[in-house]
Order: sequence, then C-alpha cells, then structure tokens
Amino acid sequence: MSVLKPIDELEAALSKLPGLGRRSASRAALALVREPIRLLDPLYAALRMARENVRCCSKCGAFTTVDSDPCGFCSDATRDGTAICVVEEPADIVSIEAAGAFRGRYHALGGKLSPSRRLGPEKLRLRELADRVRVEGITEVLLALSTDMEGDATAGYIAELLHGSGAKVTRLAFGLPVDSGIAYSDPLTLRRAIANRILQ
Amino acid sequence: MSVLKPIDELEAALSKLPGLGRRSASRAALALVREPIRLLDPLYAALRMARENVRCCSKCGAFTTVDSDPCGFCSDATRDGTAICVVEEPADIVSIEAAGAFRGRYHALGGKLSPSRRLGPEKLRLRELADRVRVEGITEVLLALSTDMEGDATAGYIAELLHGSGAKVTRLAFGLPVDSGIAYSDPLTLRRAIANRILQ
Repeated sequence: MSVLKPIDELEAALSKLPGLGRRSASRAALALVREPIRLLDPLYAALRMARENVRCCSKCGAFTTVDSDPCGFCSDATRDGTAICVVEEPADIVSIEAAGAFRGRYHALGGKLSPSRRLGPEKLRLRELADRVRVEGITEVLLALSTDMEGDATAGYIAELLHGSGAKVTRLAFGLPVDSGIAYSDPLTLRRAIANRILQ
Repeated sequence: MSVLKPIDELEAALSKLPGLGRRSASRAALALVREPIRLLDPLYAALRMARENVRCCSKCGAFTTVDSDPCGFCSDATRDGTAICVVEEPADIVSIEAAGAFRGRYHALGGKLSPSRRLGPEKLRLRELADRVRVEGITEVLLALSTDMEGDATAGYIAELLHGSGAKVTRLAFGLPVDSGIAYSDPLTLRRAIANRILQ
C-alpha cells in the first residue's frame, strides 16, 4: 500500500526488524511521523549514535564503543582471566551477562560452522580463540553455542582444536531447548545451563 | 539491563513505538547493531528522509512532502471537491484511503474534544473546517471520528458548527467497534461503515 514514499520506506525498513510484522511496522511508521519529537527524533539520534560508536571489540568480538577497545569485559581486572565463554554472535554475550552466572572473558566467533551456508572454520574467529587460550593461559573454555546440528559441529571442532592446549572445554548443559539460539533463552534457563555445564 | 549505552538508548527509543514491548525492542536493537548494512543504515536513512520531508498539508492536515503542499488529495482534480471527510489525525486518512470507498477531500482536526486532556475547540482545526466548507462550497461533511465519548462530543460540536452552512453532516455507520480509533480498523469494516454512513 502506497501512502507517501518516505512513510512507505520507513515501514519497509521497520518491517525487516525481528518481531515486527507488516502491520505493526505500518503502525510504527505512522506513529513516528505523527510524533516526531517524542518518537522520531530520539530513535534517529540513537541510531546515529549506534552507527558512529558501536564496534566489535578487536580482542573478543563483543559489542563495545569506539573509545573503549578492548571492551569492558576484556579490560575488567575483577573478571576471571582464566575462563573464556565462546559464543556465536556478540548479541549472545548480552544474554549470558543477563544470567549473571559467568564472570570470565568472552570470545565471539562471528557465527557457527555451516556447510550449507559455506561457513567453514576459516570464516570464524577460531585461530584467534586458539591463540588466546595459549597466550592468556586459559584453563576453561565454556562453549555457549546453539543446540542445533551446526552448534554441535562447531563445539566438536573447537574441542578438537583445543585438544592438548591444557584448557578444559565445557559446554552449556542441555537444559536449553533444542534447535534454538542463545539470544532467545531466558536468564533462568541460561543460569541453570551454566551451573550444569558438561564436558565436551 | 545495561548492555552498552548506545544499544540501551536504541532499545529505549524503539520500546516507545506502538506494538513493541521491552523484549522485542531489545531484540530489534541488537539486530540493528548486528546487521548495520541490512538493518541499521536503511532505517537511519528512512528516518532522516521522513524527518526532512514529511510535513502536514497546510490546507487539510494530511501527511505530505515538503515539495508538495497542498497535498495530493487537495490538488487532485479527479477527486470530488464537494465532500470532505473529517478525521482526527493525518494517520487516519491512510486507513480511509485503504478502504477505497471515499473519493473526496480530507480534513484532519489534530485530535478530538477532550475536557480531561484540556483539548477545547480552539486547539482543533475547526475554524479552518468551517472556512473550507463555506469557501469550497462543500455539500457533504463525512465525520470519520472515534466511536468513543470524545468522538461523539466532537461530532456533535461539528454538526452544530456547520448548522446552516448548507452542508450535510454525516458520520460513519456504527459498524465500527465501540471505544476504538479509526487507524485500527480493517479496510472491510471501514468500507461498510462508509457505505452505511448516517446523518449526524
């Protein structure tokens, strides 16, 4: 439905976001132009700020700001420097932190192994992980990966990669629902899965 | 939950949009920073375009662009220049147009009479409506207002205001659900309500 080109484009951009259908994107687009001061301007400013300032930490891959690289997790001396939690995406770190049951460092791979999507080991930050385990003297690598086949394959690959490194490789307990991603889990389930983590 | 200030602010701005809860705003904010090229940049560009270009028509109050004022509805010679459909908000016009059952002009009041929110007649574009009815030789004013008490009060006020103007004042049939606004109605219900409109 064509209303007005700028409003149509707003609706199109919004409808690509997770959780917004065409109808809610349309309502949100109209609300934005109806209330520019309360709704549009703050969102515009927040997007500009995120665009200019949010980066991935050069060390662990977590979201951070331009002016703090390495990120807060990497530079926080009160965190356990001997444990690394491996996640697929930086957004997963947010969910792990919300569970509040892990106090070590992080490492975001940038995805998981997927033959169908042609994502081989060279596309993920796996060599960086092996280097960190060696250089930082890591004693435990906790894998917080998806509980689908690709997550399993990635976990198996990492266990093999770090074999002989001296680090224990563990994985979140299968309290997680199968075929789901980390970012969709609730804090309670994640907390339980961290407490019951198993040897990979 | 504090993740990273720019992401928190993105979440806060998104959560004010209709239809987005805190959880979906959080997911959308993370998706935006995770996929800047596919998601963030298009939304940012669309907001900037809407911000710079979308205005309300100086004549009828409908959404239009800076470079076409009066709007397409006001300047379209193929539309019926003797009928005006009165709505509360410019966004309501989008819903009426989607129903495809009205081919006249529009007039957005900018709200409805509301003693509790201190919106008296002087806050609405009522004098402009009366002027247009007189100057443009309008023969029918179709009120497409909310079906709540404030909508009823506004409809009554307009009927009185235009008494003696020569224009017939009609109102959408009460096929509309009670206590609801125009923008939430489906096209079919609106089409029926337009066809069965009643004398105010």
